[in-house]
Amino acid sequence: MSRLSESVVRAMEILKGSDLAADYTVARLLEETYRRRSLDLSDLSPAEQAALVEGRAINVIPSASGLAEKITAAQAEGRSLVVKYGIDPTSPDVHLGHSVPIIIASRFQRMGHHVVFIIGDVTAKIGDPSGRSSERPPLTDADIAHNLSGYQQQVTPFIDFTRADLRFNGEWLNKVSLPELVGILAHVPVSMTLQRDDFRNRLAAGDGLSVAEFVYSVVMALDSVAITADVELGGVDQLLNLQMCRKVMEIREQTPEIIITTPLIEGTDGTGAKMSKSKGNYVGLSSSPDEIFGRVMSIPDHLIEPYLKQLTEWTDEEITTVTGRVADGTAHPMAVKRILAGEVTAALHGLKAAEAARAEFTARFSKRTFGEAQNLPAVSFQEHAETPLVTLLTQVLGFAASNSAARRVAAQNGLRLIAEGVDGEQHTTQLDEGSTQQALSALVGEAELTGEATFYLKAGRKIARIDV
Amino acid sequence: MSRLSESVVRAMEILKGSDLAADYTVARLLEETYRRRSLDLSDLSPAEQAALVEGRAINVIPSASGLAEKITAAQAEGRSLVVKYGIDPTSPDVHLGHSVPIIIASRFQRMGHHVVFIIGDVTAKIGDPSGRSSERPPLTDADIAHNLSGYQQQVTPFIDFTRADLRFNGEWLNKVSLPELVGILAHVPVSMTLQRDDFRNRLAAGDGLSVAEFVYSVVMALDSVAITADVELGGVDQLLNLQMCRKVMEIREQTPEIIITTPLIEGTDGTGAKMSKSKGNYVGLSSSPDEIFGRVMSIPDHLIEPYLKQLTEWTDEEITTVTGRVADGTAHPMAVKRILAGEVTAALHGLKAAEAARAEFTARFSKRTFGEAQNLPAVSFQEHAETPLVTLLTQVLGFAASNSAARRVAAQNGLRLIAEGVDGEQHTTQLDEGSTQQALSALVGEAELTGEATFYLKAGRKIARIDV
Repeated sequence: MSRLSESVVRAMEILKGSDLAADYTVARLLEETYRRRSLDLSDLSPAEQAALVEGRAINVIPSASGLAEKITAAQAEGRSLVVKYGIDPTSPDVHLGHSVPIIIASRFQRMGHHVVFIIGDVTAKIGDPSGRSSERPPLTDADIAHNLSGYQQQVTPFIDFTRADLRFNGEWLNKVSLPELVGILAHVPVSMTLQRDDFRNRLAAGDGLSVAEFVYSVVMALDSVAITADVELGGVDQLLNLQMCRKVMEIREQTPEIIITTPLIEGTDGTGAKMSKSKGNYVGLSSSPDEIFGRVMSIPDHLIEPYLKQLTEWTDEEITTVTGRVADGTAHPMAVKRILAGEVTAALHGLKAAEAARAEFTARFSKRTFGEAQNLPAVSFQEHAETPLVTLLTQVLGFAASNSAARRVAAQNGLRLIAEGVDGEQHTTQLDEGSTQQALSALVGEAELTGEATFYLKAGRKIARIDV
Repeated sequence: MSRLSESVVRAMEILKGSDLAADYTVARLLEETYRRRSLDLSDLSPAEQAALVEGRAINVIPSASGLAEKITAAQAEGRSLVVKYGIDPTSPDVHLGHSVPIIIASRFQRMGHHVVFIIGDVTAKIGDPSGRSSERPPLTDADIAHNLSGYQQQVTPFIDFTRADLRFNGEWLNKVSLPELVGILAHVPVSMTLQRDDFRNRLAAGDGLSVAEFVYSVVMALDSVAITADVELGGVDQLLNLQMCRKVMEIREQTPEIIITTPLIEGTDGTGAKMSKSKGNYVGLSSSPDEIFGRVMSIPDHLIEPYLKQLTEWTDEEITTVTGRVADGTAHPMAVKRILAGEVTAALHGLKAAEAARAEFTARFSKRTFGEAQNLPAVSFQEHAETPLVTLLTQVLGFAASNSAARRVAAQNGLRLIAEGVDGEQHTTQLDEGSTQQALSALVGEAELTGEATFYLKAGRKIARIDV
């Protein structure tokens, strides 16, 4: 029995029989599954390794059995596979969506293979136009350096960089000559590049598709040639780019790499849009534990299962057990979501931070008292007694971006004044749109104030304590 | 009055008043017009220079006045224009069609500008696909060296290579790095490349258009950047490529060159197809004087005017005069064609060779005796008395490509046995299809043979002497 199987046995025991809302149970469970993120998987057979990868992939091309054979052949040669993951540092922030293929990279690393991160300092200047409807301005060297600076740190929770390579593709691409590139382009049919829907759409729309974007995939394929990649990982939106890598390796008479694509996870808003920074429906890898926990808690229930699949080391068996318990009513979806939020927070900040975030979240958003919450922002009554509520929300607390946004929260019944007694009993006053113009003193004066109660101001999901 | 104008005055005198079929007249005329091929044109004003170029061009972009201004500006700077003409050595033979832009290059050279021939040793390996419906196999270095070896010699009659540059684009293209090329491609819209009908057609047909062909025009545009061209010449089929040169020079912040395109001349067969080696309707620059003269004589009358325009240094005034004389019946088209054939032959082999070719042609194909023809192939009667006629025509003389082709010539009344007496009197026997199976002795025996006659075998326009 492999180390992974042993862990699954222990976790299944918890998952099947315990109260998944109980703090103690969850702590034990997370401890078990969190440990898997650094579990040595080298005791898995080639077929088990391939299965562990395929189970979370959309494509394994040419096949998972081909991957198993490649692992077997490499073992016979006494070497590990070279696993490529390329990133173009086109944005300073990495989010959970980016971590999906990186988690697969982490599995390869723990299975004993060699992960090479390729930083596309040259390709970033071309800009892969996937999913964009128009051209992106080319990045400067300063942009790239800035974007890259945080990248490694943000990805470190998933990858042991002491055992992985981090290489810049300028290292070889700057040395490629025009005749060499053109010699490769001579074997690449235009039809292969025009398979991309976004290219065809932009051409049809008369949009400024540049010839550089057209050759992008060939250029990034040279990375695979340079490191003689055995395997490449990427989001499924990279499928055509990855197939070009296989094509170019063939042109250069190398064995084409096996390509593995992973799903694009949906954003936290649950609208079906993929997670992206521009849509604001993302969880940043550099966010604080509380932010991460809260963001994951905000997802709709139907995303619990795909998030468990793509963001944790849970097996299908474990996920099926949990969803079964939700279905038969022995576990509440909210409880499972808390476990998921703990998983994600632990992955990025460790178990203790995850537990603290869980407690904080519970205190803040559950039926517990606000008094238990540690990190609430506070506003001084003495200082702001005469400040209009709208100013408090926008300028002092930053709970609303503008006066109109503050009024909108009120109009949607999201603005409340809550008095909490020492016994935890709460008295809530819903504030209407008009009250945003009133001063704090007028509002608190209206409430039934006793010396023993603490006042809280709640705007949407944001809460602040009023220190009298 | 410029040197050219003086020459025109002298030629016009001949063209207007003389018998254009008379050998003496033609010799005087050719001497005058042939001399123009090396006439110093530097006494022309910038406007006259531009007009001399524009008069034989299809496009002058942005304009002929722009060209005149550029010449004026260069003169003010004390420099001459850099005039680019690029060739990819994709074929060992150059024909009259290729000479059309080269004749314009020659004019630039004689106007005092600096002509740079760019030999596309790198671009030849991509292969510009103009007018081809499918991909050409890439050329090897050996192909290129072979193709190039004859090129300079074949073009030498038009260009003084002691004053022109001959440069290989590998000199700079081999040094262009991938990021540099891609940086330029980023500013080139795909739509500009897709303007080519042949690209669009091949894409629509699912034909294997390669990405290398797609970037060809950008690569050849780097030649203009490398030599900072002021002017570029090319056939009108190169228009889109030349426009890319302007675009890329702009991207590289150079003043875009002026582009000048020349017509594609029709093939000698007069079917309207452009002159091309694959169609066999061409006049090779390396052909013998007799071949050149004969080939030009074979063109239909309607090509006389365009050939005079594109292949000689005649002015519009002179051409109009000649065509006027044909129209009013004071000159026979055949006489003008002989002048044209003399012009072309003289251009490539000099005046004396042109005169000899004219005499030879007259002897062979006119009403003169065959005995005056110098270079007729001969077949020995003693050796081939028993050889069937068909074998003589195919294997011995090479007058027909196959037995069926030989029979076809007979069926079309093109096969004749001609006995010519010492007095020049000819007795012709038309041979029918059946006689192709007969032996030479049977045919000659049937003819009225006297010891004084010489026998000739005529198959279509080809003639051989039978040596008894």
